[in-house]
Amino acid sequence: MNVAESLKRLLVGRKLASTQLGETLLPKRIALPVFASDALSSVAYAPDEIFLTLSLAGIAGYAFSWPIAVAVAVVMLVVVLSYRQTVHAYPSGGGDYEVATVNLGRRPGLVVASALLVDYILTVAVSVSSGVQNAKAIFPQLVGHEGIWAAALILLLMTLNLRGVRESGTFFAIPTYGFMVAVIGMTLFGAFRILGLGEELHAPTADYTIVGDPFYGSLTSIAVVVLLARAFSSGCAALTGVEAISNGVPAFKEPKSRNAATTLGLLGAVAISMLGGIIWLANVTGTKVIDESSGVVLTRGEEVVRHTDTIMGQLAATVFDGFYPGFLFVVATTMIILFLAANTAFNGFPVLGSILARDGYLPKSLHTRGDRLAYSNGIILLAVAASTLVLVFNASVTALIQLYVVGVFVSFTLSQLGMLRHWTRHLRTEVDPAARAHMVRSRAINAVGLTCTGTVLVIVLAAKFIYGAYLTVVAMALLFALMWAIQRHYAKVARETALDPSETRTLPSRVRAVILVNELNKPAMRAINFARASRANTMEAVVVAADPDAVEQLRDEWDELNPGITLTVIASPYRQVVAPFLAYVKGLRSGNPRDVVMVYLPELVVGHWWERLLHNQTGLLIKARLEFFPGVMVTAVPYQLASSQVALERAVRSDAAAWRRPGSGAVHVGAHLDD
Amino acid sequence: MNVAESLKRLLVGRKLASTQLGETLLPKRIALPVFASDALSSVAYAPDEIFLTLSLAGIAGYAFSWPIAVAVAVVMLVVVLSYRQTVHAYPSGGGDYEVATVNLGRRPGLVVASALLVDYILTVAVSVSSGVQNAKAIFPQLVGHEGIWAAALILLLMTLNLRGVRESGTFFAIPTYGFMVAVIGMTLFGAFRILGLGEELHAPTADYTIVGDPFYGSLTSIAVVVLLARAFSSGCAALTGVEAISNGVPAFKEPKSRNAATTLGLLGAVAISMLGGIIWLANVTGTKVIDESSGVVLTRGEEVVRHTDTIMGQLAATVFDGFYPGFLFVVATTMIILFLAANTAFNGFPVLGSILARDGYLPKSLHTRGDRLAYSNGIILLAVAASTLVLVFNASVTALIQLYVVGVFVSFTLSQLGMLRHWTRHLRTEVDPAARAHMVRSRAINAVGLTCTGTVLVIVLAAKFIYGAYLTVVAMALLFALMWAIQRHYAKVARETALDPSETRTLPSRVRAVILVNELNKPAMRAINFARASRANTMEAVVVAADPDAVEQLRDEWDELNPGITLTVIASPYRQVVAPFLAYVKGLRSGNPRDVVMVYLPELVVGHWWERLLHNQTGLLIKARLEFFPGVMVTAVPYQLASSQVALERAVRSDAAAWRRPGSGAVHVGAHLDD
Repeated sequence: MNVAESLKRLLVGRKLASTQLGETLLPKRIALPVFASDALSSVAYAPDEIFLTLSLAGIAGYAFSWPIAVAVAVVMLVVVLSYRQTVHAYPSGGGDYEVATVNLGRRPGLVVASALLVDYILTVAVSVSSGVQNAKAIFPQLVGHEGIWAAALILLLMTLNLRGVRESGTFFAIPTYGFMVAVIGMTLFGAFRILGLGEELHAPTADYTIVGDPFYGSLTSIAVVVLLARAFSSGCAALTGVEAISNGVPAFKEPKSRNAATTLGLLGAVAISMLGGIIWLANVTGTKVIDESSGVVLTRGEEVVRHTDTIMGQLAATVFDGFYPGFLFVVATTMIILFLAANTAFNGFPVLGSILARDGYLPKSLHTRGDRLAYSNGIILLAVAASTLVLVFNASVTALIQLYVVGVFVSFTLSQLGMLRHWTRHLRTEVDPAARAHMVRSRAINAVGLTCTGTVLVIVLAAKFIYGAYLTVVAMALLFALMWAIQRHYAKVARETALDPSETRTLPSRVRAVILVNELNKPAMRAINFARASRANTMEAVVVAADPDAVEQLRDEWDELNPGITLTVIASPYRQVVAPFLAYVKGLRSGNPRDVVMVYLPELVVGHWWERLLHNQTGLLIKARLEFFPGVMVTAVPYQLASSQVALERAVRSDAAAWRRPGSGAVHVGAHLDD
Repeated sequence: MNVAESLKRLLVGRKLASTQLGETLLPKRIALPVFASDALSSVAYAPDEIFLTLSLAGIAGYAFSWPIAVAVAVVMLVVVLSYRQTVHAYPSGGGDYEVATVNLGRRPGLVVASALLVDYILTVAVSVSSGVQNAKAIFPQLVGHEGIWAAALILLLMTLNLRGVRESGTFFAIPTYGFMVAVIGMTLFGAFRILGLGEELHAPTADYTIVGDPFYGSLTSIAVVVLLARAFSSGCAALTGVEAISNGVPAFKEPKSRNAATTLGLLGAVAISMLGGIIWLANVTGTKVIDESSGVVLTRGEEVVRHTDTIMGQLAATVFDGFYPGFLFVVATTMIILFLAANTAFNGFPVLGSILARDGYLPKSLHTRGDRLAYSNGIILLAVAASTLVLVFNASVTALIQLYVVGVFVSFTLSQLGMLRHWTRHLRTEVDPAARAHMVRSRAINAVGLTCTGTVLVIVLAAKFIYGAYLTVVAMALLFALMWAIQRHYAKVARETALDPSETRTLPSRVRAVILVNELNKPAMRAINFARASRANTMEAVVVAADPDAVEQLRDEWDELNPGITLTVIASPYRQVVAPFLAYVKGLRSGNPRDVVMVYLPELVVGHWWERLLHNQTGLLIKARLEFFPGVMVTAVPYQLASSQVALERAVRSDAAAWRRPGSGAVHVGAHLDD
């Protein structure tokens, strides 16, 4: 235990107190890499997925890459503008879940929560998978083991996140800025070589011809619409992560909302620039990508190629041909930013889980336990779910992307609808003309946002449903049903246990104490003495005569030592202990419903698991059964054997860092005992 | 649960009360088949194993079958005479274990117990395996699946034995007598045909020649001694089961000892007759058996035979040639008696286990729990161990017999040594000349018994050690070590908890009651009211401020409803609940060592396993930790939710038959509460 504990401290770091929360607040320059790496990193795979889908129609399809990039950029712009409204209106960090719950009701709110939980998991799976795919350009030995490596990296991320948000913020800032420099630098350098120096840059795949799927070869109108819808849907992966900022507002430095909105704007500008730059470069240099599983191949004369590097890898090799450090910098920062993108989900998922636990949609014990501010339980759950996905799909981005994006757009759409209601509601009461004008403008922006995200949601669902999105829908439905059931259960319990003010003062009329004894030893004597100290109305020691010889001996000892209370011997014709004792306790109760029976069980506290098998077995059975008897309380009177010291020391060691004497923190409320 | 419960009742039958024990006492005519079937049934495989071992030396080896049979019969006679002394001297049923413990000490007693436990398991495994081997003469489809069938039959026996001893007695009497009739009838009819009618009977294998192992072909003096020792050791399997009667004396009708001694004598006479008859018939009819795994084969001209039926099967076919019902009767009763022999162990093993549990060598909960007189736990343990053996050895008698007999002779030898001491000790004080003469005679018999069984033990160990007996020795040593450790643990605990008479009256000086609350609801109110009824010196409700908003709300409610006691708010800078609460309780204690802290935990009682995940998790953690605090008692105040009704009904159903109101069975001892 000591080693495990030390290891945990080493990995998880020192604990953070609530008052230390201020320390973890993020300035904009740190918040951008922490929360925006998801959206930024998707330029590493969104162009690939657009080109891959279009390649089904052969080289002719590539002509549509520009319009699709523009469409994605427009949607991005609209979503960023919409969320700037949200960040100002709801600075508490509930994000889309809060917006939907407050304005639309609990069910839509829970739909948003389910959607976001699923999409957080997919963000981790897709980003890490894409990171591993990009890493193959440098480490070809990864081929064939993508799933395992992706799972290992997810576990590494989990460990980093269990250490807390601030360390990860600092840790992640440099490579994120490095990625921005790499991609924008590459685009500018490429543009300089082409436009400034007039060079002609040729991608490694520029001389090849794409042999597309014959089905799309003719480019009939229906087929081309379906294909463009799929390409656009995959491209929309670039939009995930925008909502992460709206969920993370409380982590920003003051003024929180304003800083968050600025960061959101920056994110939009940078992401659109990078996406545009890459698609332009790819078109100019004749870059081509194919997906092995789709059957599309590249040909040059007799040569047939079935596998290409990622667009980012090809562009880096083209723009920096002959300058290996430049190539390496682009590929390495791409790899790293993708792992950091997964980190965005590790920030958002546990926060949302904790909020859901607070609202009773998840077990309440998840809300406050865990000894780290970053909600360890949620982090571990996310890591397990994402690892499972990458192992099942062997870290194939093209397969995982089909499940992706649905959740985010469900959340976008419901959130925009909620914002629309929000402004409409506030406009009903607001009288200040300036504020009203501001609200009308915000409502207009959110209305455009709703139309846009709703349309994209329909397109994404239709285009991806049979390719995998149905799995996402099923997962969302299951999560929704589970959380709804948990909430209903808690609500039912709360109703059932709600206090009826008239009952508060009905004290039990009589307390009957029963001490179950087996032998007359120290544990039994301690139980008897403790029971006597509580001054019950009647008190008796009880033994079940399962072993007549032993009981005879006990009676003799009792007469001799006279512990001061009656010993009742219960007959046990079937040599049982539990059933006759329960029947006896039941008989004590039946007289007066306001009577209380207090059962004292002497218990031996031992230090080793195997000692537990040798002691207290009967007591455990009795406790489990007495639970169901109303008006019966069970008091365990522990007797600590010397061997229990081992277990105590183990427990103290693991609690040592956690304990702090409450001191002046204890506050007393209400009347003192009035009788 | 209802179906499972009904099924259990159907299989296990109605429960038996202690007062019904008289009903299960056995008359001699029932006791013989119940306890003696083991020893009798071994004539079904002991001759086979003698002949199989001798066949290694080719046909010349068979000449030694007669001397070996005589040696086994002599040992049998000595053992039976010796045990008649034991049955009279120790009628309580502890058998060899009791004899060794009383006269030699606890360690030798435990050696005997370990040996007997191992041998009971082997009795079941060998008998059932031999039954399956014999059954192959009628059901050839069993070939290749012996292990599975043997395991299935052991489970069937387990079920029958869980129903109780009397049913199995009646159930097993008829086939046991049938077997005696079959074997003795076959021997007499064969003798009549050979001696009376002068016929020449030829076994199916009479015309074949045995090709033995070349190593034994020369019959050098060392090799022949080793071979004869192995053959004799296997033949000694006929002696197992004799001690079963000495363990089973309390199950006999009065006069118990006399009836048991008579049954023992009958058993010896019948077993020796049957063994002699079969070996005579086998020699006269030229019966040959071989073991496939030893490499010995039968040849006739070009023909090579690698598999033969059992001796019993060949003799039945020879003596009753042309009279199929006669053949069928012999084989069928042989098969059945072997399964019944296993039943002997199912009678003895749980009784011994229960005695060992009483003496603290096995978990004490095994002694009295279980709702059937036949000690369900031991029966199940035996069945599991024996099933494992038959599956591992695929029900091969020749393999299992190498492990067998060692335990019984360890037990025989130590028991005879104990009897010798017993008589010597009694002779020191006895003055009546008639009684002294009787004792001297008994001591002489036991001295012969000791010499004889000790010699056989050495022979058996030496002859079988490398062939498998070492496994038995290891198993015995492990069992011994385990039981010794358990006993040491119980003794240590008993010393540690033994009452110091001076302490008996030191009552706690002050009781401080602490009620852990989370919300102000019915469960909390019930806990508060119950705590108030116990009139502690100080009393407070405590809440841990892990969620500041929730605590704020609780304080407001507290002020409004005023439950009559103080609410203490414990600061929790790390948002934990368990650690700050434990620290607070610790702080309450530290003042006065004679103070007692009584912690009341409101608990929700739920009906489904999944509901448990949603409630009481924190309470469980707190209970587990508070165990280690001396002077702190934890009282669970259960609040039964409506859903707990489900679980209650389930529990009541399963207890319904077990519960009987104690009524006049309760006896009160000692003084009434004196303050």
